[in-house]
Amino acid sequence: MEDIQHQQMGYDRATTMFAPDGRILQVEYAEKIVRFGSSSIGVVCKNGVIIISNRRQKDKLIVEESANKINEIDEHIIVVSSGIMSDAKVLIEKARVLAQQHRVTYDSPVSTESIVQDIADIKQQFTQYSGARPFGVSMIFAGVDNNKPSLFATDVTGNYLKYRATSIGENDDKIKEKLKEKYRTDMTTKEALKMTMGIFKEIQGEEYNIDRFDAGILEKGKIVKISGKEIEKY
Amino acid sequence: MEDIQHQQMGYDRATTMFAPDGRILQVEYAEKIVRFGSSSIGVVCKNGVIIISNRRQKDKLIVEESANKINEIDEHIIVVSSGIMSDAKVLIEKARVLAQQHRVTYDSPVSTESIVQDIADIKQQFTQYSGARPFGVSMIFAGVDNNKPSLFATDVTGNYLKYRATSIGENDDKIKEKLKEKYRTDMTTKEALKMTMGIFKEIQGEEYNIDRFDAGILEKGKIVKISGKEIEKY
Amino acid sequence: MEDIQHQQMGYDRATTMFAPDGRILQVEYAEKIVRFGSSSIGVVCKNGVIIISNRRQKDKLIVEESANKINEIDEHIIVVSSGIMSDAKVLIEKARVLAQQHRVTYDSPVSTESIVQDIADIKQQFTQYSGARPFGVSMIFAGVDNNKPSLFATDVTGNYLKYRATSIGENDDKIKEKLKEKYRTDMTTKEALKMTMGIFKEIQGEEYNIDRFDAGILEKGKIVKISGKEIEKY
Amino acid sequence: MEDIQHQQMGYDRATTMFAPDGRILQVEYAEKIVRFGSSSIGVVCKNGVIIISNRRQKDKLIVEESANKINEIDEHIIVVSSGIMSDAKVLIEKARVLAQQHRVTYDSPVSTESIVQDIADIKQQFTQYSGARPFGVSMIFAGVDNNKPSLFATDVTGNYLKYRATSIGENDDKIKEKLKEKYRTDMTTKEALKMTMGIFKEIQGEEYNIDRFDAGILEKGKIVKISGKEIEKY
Amino acid sequence: MEDIQHQQMGYDRATTMFAPDGRILQVEYAEKIVRFGSSSIGVVCKNGVIIISNRRQKDKLIVEESANKINEIDEHIIVVSSGIMSDAKVLIEKARVLAQQHRVTYDSPVSTESIVQDIADIKQQFTQYSGARPFGVSMIFAGVDNNKPSLFATDVTGNYLKYRATSIGENDDKIKEKLKEKYRTDMTTKEALKMTMGIFKEIQGEEYNIDRFDAGILEKGKIVKISGKEIEKY
Amino acid sequence: MEDIQHQQMGYDRATTMFAPDGRILQVEYAEKIVRFGSSSIGVVCKNGVIIISNRRQKDKLIVEESANKINEIDEHIIVVSSGIMSDAKVLIEKARVLAQQHRVTYDSPVSTESIVQDIADIKQQFTQYSGARPFGVSMIFAGVDNNKPSLFATDVTGNYLKYRATSIGENDDKIKEKLKEKYRTDMTTKEALKMTMGIFKEIQGEEYNIDRFDAGILEKGKIVKISGKEIEKY
Amino acid sequence: MEDIQHQQMGYDRATTMFAPDGRILQVEYAEKIVRFGSSSIGVVCKNGVIIISNRRQKDKLIVEESANKINEIDEHIIVVSSGIMSDAKVLIEKARVLAQQHRVTYDSPVSTESIVQDIADIKQQFTQYSGARPFGVSMIFAGVDNNKPSLFATDVTGNYLKYRATSIGENDDKIKEKLKEKYRTDMTTKEALKMTMGIFKEIQGEEYNIDRFDAGILEKGKIVKISGKEIEKY
Repeated sequence: MEDIQHQQMGYDRATTMFAPDGRILQVEYAEKIVRFGSSSIGVVCKNGVIIISNRRQKDKLIVEESANKINEIDEHIIVVSSGIMSDAKVLIEKARVLAQQHRVTYDSPVSTESIVQDIADIKQQFTQYSGARPFGVSMIFAGVDNNKPSLFATDVTGNYLKYRATSIGENDDKIKEKLKEKYRTDMTTKEALKMTMGIFKEIQGEEYNIDRFDAGILEKGKIVKISGKEIEKY
Repeated sequence: MEDIQHQQMGYDRATTMFAPDGRILQVEYAEKIVRFGSSSIGVVCKNGVIIISNRRQKDKLIVEESANKINEIDEHIIVVSSGIMSDAKVLIEKARVLAQQHRVTYDSPVSTESIVQDIADIKQQFTQYSGARPFGVSMIFAGVDNNKPSLFATDVTGNYLKYRATSIGENDDKIKEKLKEKYRTDMTTKEALKMTMGIFKEIQGEEYNIDRFDAGILEKGKIVKISGKEIEKY
Repeated sequence: MEDIQHQQMGYDRATTMFAPDGRILQVEYAEKIVRFGSSSIGVVCKNGVIIISNRRQKDKLIVEESANKINEIDEHIIVVSSGIMSDAKVLIEKARVLAQQHRVTYDSPVSTESIVQDIADIKQQFTQYSGARPFGVSMIFAGVDNNKPSLFATDVTGNYLKYRATSIGENDDKIKEKLKEKYRTDMTTKEALKMTMGIFKEIQGEEYNIDRFDAGILEKGKIVKISGKEIEKY
Repeated sequence: MEDIQHQQMGYDRATTMFAPDGRILQVEYAEKIVRFGSSSIGVVCKNGVIIISNRRQKDKLIVEESANKINEIDEHIIVVSSGIMSDAKVLIEKARVLAQQHRVTYDSPVSTESIVQDIADIKQQFTQYSGARPFGVSMIFAGVDNNKPSLFATDVTGNYLKYRATSIGENDDKIKEKLKEKYRTDMTTKEALKMTMGIFKEIQGEEYNIDRFDAGILEKGKIVKISGKEIEKY
Repeated sequence: MEDIQHQQMGYDRATTMFAPDGRILQVEYAEKIVRFGSSSIGVVCKNGVIIISNRRQKDKLIVEESANKINEIDEHIIVVSSGIMSDAKVLIEKARVLAQQHRVTYDSPVSTESIVQDIADIKQQFTQYSGARPFGVSMIFAGVDNNKPSLFATDVTGNYLKYRATSIGENDDKIKEKLKEKYRTDMTTKEALKMTMGIFKEIQGEEYNIDRFDAGILEKGKIVKISGKEIEKY
Repeated sequence: MEDIQHQQMGYDRATTMFAPDGRILQVEYAEKIVRFGSSSIGVVCKNGVIIISNRRQKDKLIVEESANKINEIDEHIIVVSSGIMSDAKVLIEKARVLAQQHRVTYDSPVSTESIVQDIADIKQQFTQYSGARPFGVSMIFAGVDNNKPSLFATDVTGNYLKYRATSIGENDDKIKEKLKEKYRTDMTTKEALKMTMGIFKEIQGEEYNIDRFDAGILEKGKIVKISGKEIEKY
Repeated sequence: MEDIQHQQMGYDRATTMFAPDGRILQVEYAEKIVRFGSSSIGVVCKNGVIIISNRRQKDKLIVEESANKINEIDEHIIVVSSGIMSDAKVLIEKARVLAQQHRVTYDSPVSTESIVQDIADIKQQFTQYSGARPFGVSMIFAGVDNNKPSLFATDVTGNYLKYRATSIGENDDKIKEKLKEKYRTDMTTKEALKMTMGIFKEIQGEEYNIDRFDAGILEKGKIVKISGKEIEKY
């Protein structure tokens, strides 16, 4: 009811406008496109950190690696995105450049949180200044800094938090409820993969198809990317 | 009544527009989002200064330190925010950079008020120029300069005042009334913590849950950050 | 009547638009916020110049010096503002920087009128260019240059005049009428303080409360700032 | 009739828009504010040039020299303005800077027409570009270059003409008619002052009050500024 | 009919908008203001080139040379304008600067067409870019380059053509018809002046008044400017 | 029908807006002004390339060369335009500067296609960015590079194609149909001129008047420009 | 239904606006113009990669190579576009410059994906920032890097994927279905050409005309471009 009034009054036409109740409606709309995106889950484990991502559909014309939404930022950081894929690609490219610049300048890997913070700052600016729309994308970053695994998620507003486990995209709320039930801090990456796929099975029911999943695993100082049945066998 | 007229006439669509009664409605709307934020209290004590912040809810998936709204600006300054968290993060980062630049340039810590003034200036600009929305965030800064504790709060407009004790976020007016009753200038940080938690208990009633509180304490030249039951035991 | 027509036609939506009768309505609206501000009076005396300012309410949580609206620009210039306090703070800070730059460049104090002119120029620009709103603030500047006291007031449009005595904020017109009756050019600062407080008593009636007043006195080459009962005893 | 249509169609909302009949209505509106301003008259004489300006009202709180609308640009140029006083102050300041720059660069006084042309150019730009409103001010410049007196008037559009005698502000058309009747090219400044005050008396009738007039007289290589009864005695 | 539809749909509000029939209405409106301007005629002769300009009315308060619309650009180029006089002054000043720059850079006079092209380019830009309105002025340039007289006219759009004889301002179409009848390429400047005044007499009928005309004559390497009865006697 | 809906919804007000069916209506409107322009034809021949252009009307007051729409870009490139003549002049001037810069930099003539591509790029930008309207002009470029004649046409969108023969302006579609019938790749310039004039005669019927045509012929390393009856005799 | 509501509320007027359901309608409209474009197919083969493109109609006045939509970016990369041809030309030119710069800087060919990513980034920006419209063009890039053939398609949003085989333009969905049926990874370029032409025949039915097709074939380190019957004979 109030939403329709807000729309008729035009409060939802610009990122630079607060509605009378203090909401920024353009940002809320952008969050909807994220919720339409396919689901991903990230989990911190005692021996690493994992991200599992669901492809909505498998298109045999597309080269698999190209459709995989899990991307490397640096040797020790991976990211998965939900929402507008072209927006995500731009932010991923920026993150890569920032990581490279850090390596060149300091001769050491950038910290995961530093990358997350820079990307989040960019996102925030696009919710405050006119002349552009917000980035319609949520992201989970997983990294290992000095052997310590970590997981961050940034939303459309540019806010970010450090997680033990989290989810973005379709059904993210339901998935988080399952994670709260099942997550244990002493899980191995193997156990976490199993738990994650179990949650997907529960949520997707008959639509569940192992062939449509990609996983990124950060452990023992390297990134392992596997897909489909390889995930079950890991 | 007048508000609805103002809305229909469009006086509330831009930060650069005064309503016929001289109000800037976009700024007033931004203040509402701040009032929806969780509550924080700051108190100057004879032996230091404290900030206590309420997390609305505890999410076991989020790493605690990440959800803590009390942030360090420098070794002698902390800040807590209420409102849009991504906006707050940007301002906190700016404050940190300003503090570092001061250390590098003058080889001495920046004064708390100097940081507050710079952040407030930035906020003011975003209420006067077009091309952006105001920062939807109020902040309490606590600092110790040359062993003198101080407390400042900046609102959405970029105004700031120096306080003995104050509150931002949900129920800030009620909390301030309680503070006026109970605050004494000769309180120790320990006594102030107790008083503060008492006020939260009174205001929140049955919803009060010690586990959802974080405290930042500046005394004896260092910052102490504690949470939940640690606050009661301090 | 004509005002309502102007509003319906939208002539009052931008600082860059003249109404058909040549008025700039956004500026007039900004002047209203100034009239809602608390009152201040400035008086030139034979031995100096004074500013007296009324705080609307006394909040024991606020540190007194922080709520005092009388601010120093330099060793020989003080200012008081009425309207949007964050706007005033920005202009005061600019004035301070200009005064310091003058000292550094010429090794002598800047003249009061030169500071007033620069601040007035800034204000004028914000009533002529788009992309920002006018500064919602009127200011009284008091200064002593080469032992000659002077008093200036700038309004929202950026116009300024040199006064013997004047007032800004709530009831400014009534106060000016009283000043015309009572002001004498050969008053001492002591006499002027007395006259001023008398005028406030007359205007405010039962609401008058000496505790809510601050005074700034420029005489004998220094600034004296006093508050409440100290004013009566001066 | 056509004006109301133009208003309803919105042709009068921006300086950058021609109405269907080729008029620029924002400029016409700005001209109205000039007509509301108090009247001034300028007259070229055989032995110099004079400007006489009417103050609408005398406010004993204002220092006289501050309310005087006749301003010096350089040792040999004076100016009087009608319209928005803060706009006028900005243009006068620009004119002064230009005159000083000329002295510094060429070690000789700038010509009056050169100053007039630069100020007129600035005014024209503000009637053609968006992002600002026109300067709401007309000005009479009087100067003596190489012993030759001259008089110029610039209007809101930035057009300027060289006059023998002219008027701006309230009743300018009526005053010009009187000037056409009475002006003779061989008048002395004394005779011209007398003629001018006579015209003001005729136009203002009972409201005429010698105390509300200021005069600027350029003769014998210097500027004389007199007010009120001094004008009659000159 | 179509025009009213265009106006109601708003196609005529900006220079950057084509109407559905491909017209740029803001430019057409600007052309109207030119047609309201007083008339001028230019004629190329075998021994030079002339411009004759009509002043609408004679104001004895205005110094004659100031009201004369025929202006020098350089020793060998003159120009006359019709439309908004402040716009014309800006373009004339630009033309003068360009001519001077050419003399300084190449130590030779600039060609008339080169000046015309530069001014026309400026005019075109103001019909294509947003952020400004078109220049509301048409101009006739007359020049003699290497003893060859030439005549150019630029319209509001920034188009320009080289003419044998042409007219701008009020009644330009009627005057051009007369010119087509009477113009001969072997006319002397004297004969052309006579023909031109004859055309004005025919067109203006009873309103014709020789005192209201100015002429500029380029012949024998110099510019002659004459007015009123001097034209008849030339 | 759909067009009227598009207009009422405002899809046709800006170059930066796609209509729901993917059309850019402002560009389509600009194309209409081109269709109102007079016709031109270009033909590649075995011994060169020709352009023939129709002047709508012959004005004896205009110097012929000035009304000729066929312009030289360089010694080996000519161009003809249809649409807004001031827009065309700006693009032609840019093309000339580009050609000169190439000669200066590389000491060799620029290729015709390179010039066409640069001009087309500029045109494209004006259909994609806001802040300006598209160039309302189509152009045929004819050039001879290393003895090879070529012909290009650019439309309003900035698209360009290489032609054997083509037409722009009024009746361009009908003329192209005739060209498809009659064009042979082994024509001489003489034969092509004859064919072209034949097509004009057919299309214009009684309105055909040889005096209103200009031709540009590139053959034997030089440009020949002829008009009216000279075309028939060539 | 919802679309019409979105249109009436104006959510589809700017690229910088999300509709309440999170869609960016201006981008969707731009995608329609792409679907109106003629069809192209790309296929990766075991011995190379091919692109086949359909010209809607054959115009004998246009030089064939100019109408061919298959363009070279570098010795090892070709591209075909569907949508607004002037937009495509600008992007192709940018790609060429990027490829040349890489050769000059690194003395080695740029990778196909690197070019695709840069062009996709540019496209993304035009869907996020105001002041321009999106590029109305989809593109298929085919390249051979170190003897490995690859195929990419970028859409209007700036998203890109790596394909085994894909299609853009009219009937792209139907063509992709056919490709999924018939594509085998071990096809030779010859077999792929045959398959592709077979699909076109099926889709176009009676309208199929071999003369309207162009093919680009990358194999054995070189680009072969053929048209019409040459495709059947390859």
